[in-house]
Amino acid sequence: MARTGRRPGAGGTREKILSAARTQFARRGYDGTTIRGIATAARVDPKLVLHYFETKEGVFEAAMDFPFDPAQALPRLLEPGLDGLGTRLALFFLEIWDSPAGARAQALMRSVVASETAASLMRDFASKEILGRLAERLELDHPELRASLVASQLVGLAILRHVVKVEPIASARPAELAEWIGPTLQRYLTEAAV
Amino acid sequence: MARTGRRPGAGGTREKILSAARTQFARRGYDGTTIRGIATAARVDPKLVLHYFETKEGVFEAAMDFPFDPAQALPRLLEPGLDGLGTRLALFFLEIWDSPAGARAQALMRSVVASETAASLMRDFASKEILGRLAERLELDHPELRASLVASQLVGLAILRHVVKVEPIASARPAELAEWIGPTLQRYLTEAAV
Repeated sequence: MARTGRRPGAGGTREKILSAARTQFARRGYDGTTIRGIATAARVDPKLVLHYFETKEGVFEAAMDFPFDPAQALPRLLEPGLDGLGTRLALFFLEIWDSPAGARAQALMRSVVASETAASLMRDFASKEILGRLAERLELDHPELRASLVASQLVGLAILRHVVKVEPIASARPAELAEWIGPTLQRYLTEAAV
Repeated sequence: MARTGRRPGAGGTREKILSAARTQFARRGYDGTTIRGIATAARVDPKLVLHYFETKEGVFEAAMDFPFDPAQALPRLLEPGLDGLGTRLALFFLEIWDSPAGARAQALMRSVVASETAASLMRDFASKEILGRLAERLELDHPELRASLVASQLVGLAILRHVVKVEPIASARPAELAEWIGPTLQRYLTEAAV
């Protein structure tokens, strides 16, 4: 998460860039926003945007207070191969929601469900930077559908566990939930379609 | 859905009861609200509440504009037995969201995710009248956890398909999605825990 963390002493410029980025993303969507467009709106040099955030994805994550960095997390989760990936994804996701970043995940979920603009922004970002990265590593038919089915189970789990707080899901241990959810994700990821 | 439909010519009293019911449910939760309490708040005879809505569940569904009636739907889905129940549940749920009632389902989802009060109300109602009814028909260990895992997959599917509209889930045919989701639900419902 280092990339999205705050750097001391750079508050003014950094905040100005993030504020301009939020407006640009809301107006043009994720795909339609560019580093150059953000820099122009913030009246800074594009190199300064890259200096603080490295990539458009980095700006987005900082601007939206995104609870994890897919560019770091996904390669690490995928590195050991497709074997056991379902359980690794389940545990990683459960840990985010149980950590201090869980409050940010919940705020983001609220805004995505409440606002068409946030939903559309998240759709573009997630399709490209999360589901796309996962799909390109899958080896069977329908990789994008498989990746989005994985996301559907994880998002629904978070809603029941952390938003509606339905028992016994709300109080179950992460390891117990991963034993149930892991094989579901693994089936979506690596089993032949029925 | 007949029970939650509007009966012509009874607008005033019916609306007065529903308005009182919304206040009572929000204040006392689902479990803490009674037909008698609703009647007192609406200044009508409890018999009139029963005349219009039959049960507390019926009042709740009308007051919250609930998109289906679990008291009718679940026995029908469960009637053929546990075999194939996963696919029947998936298709039933997908059909609600694709029907005119889908707009009500979406409004309800928005309010549950946005408001702690609505979330708590939905938690009590769903635990008792939906997940409880399903759990009591299951034959293995952890019936409540199994029922809520089913709900987690269905809720997440609705969020990705109808709220965030992630492709290709958003445009997939219900039958195709049921082929993926059905076996997941069936495993939660009827397979031994790992």
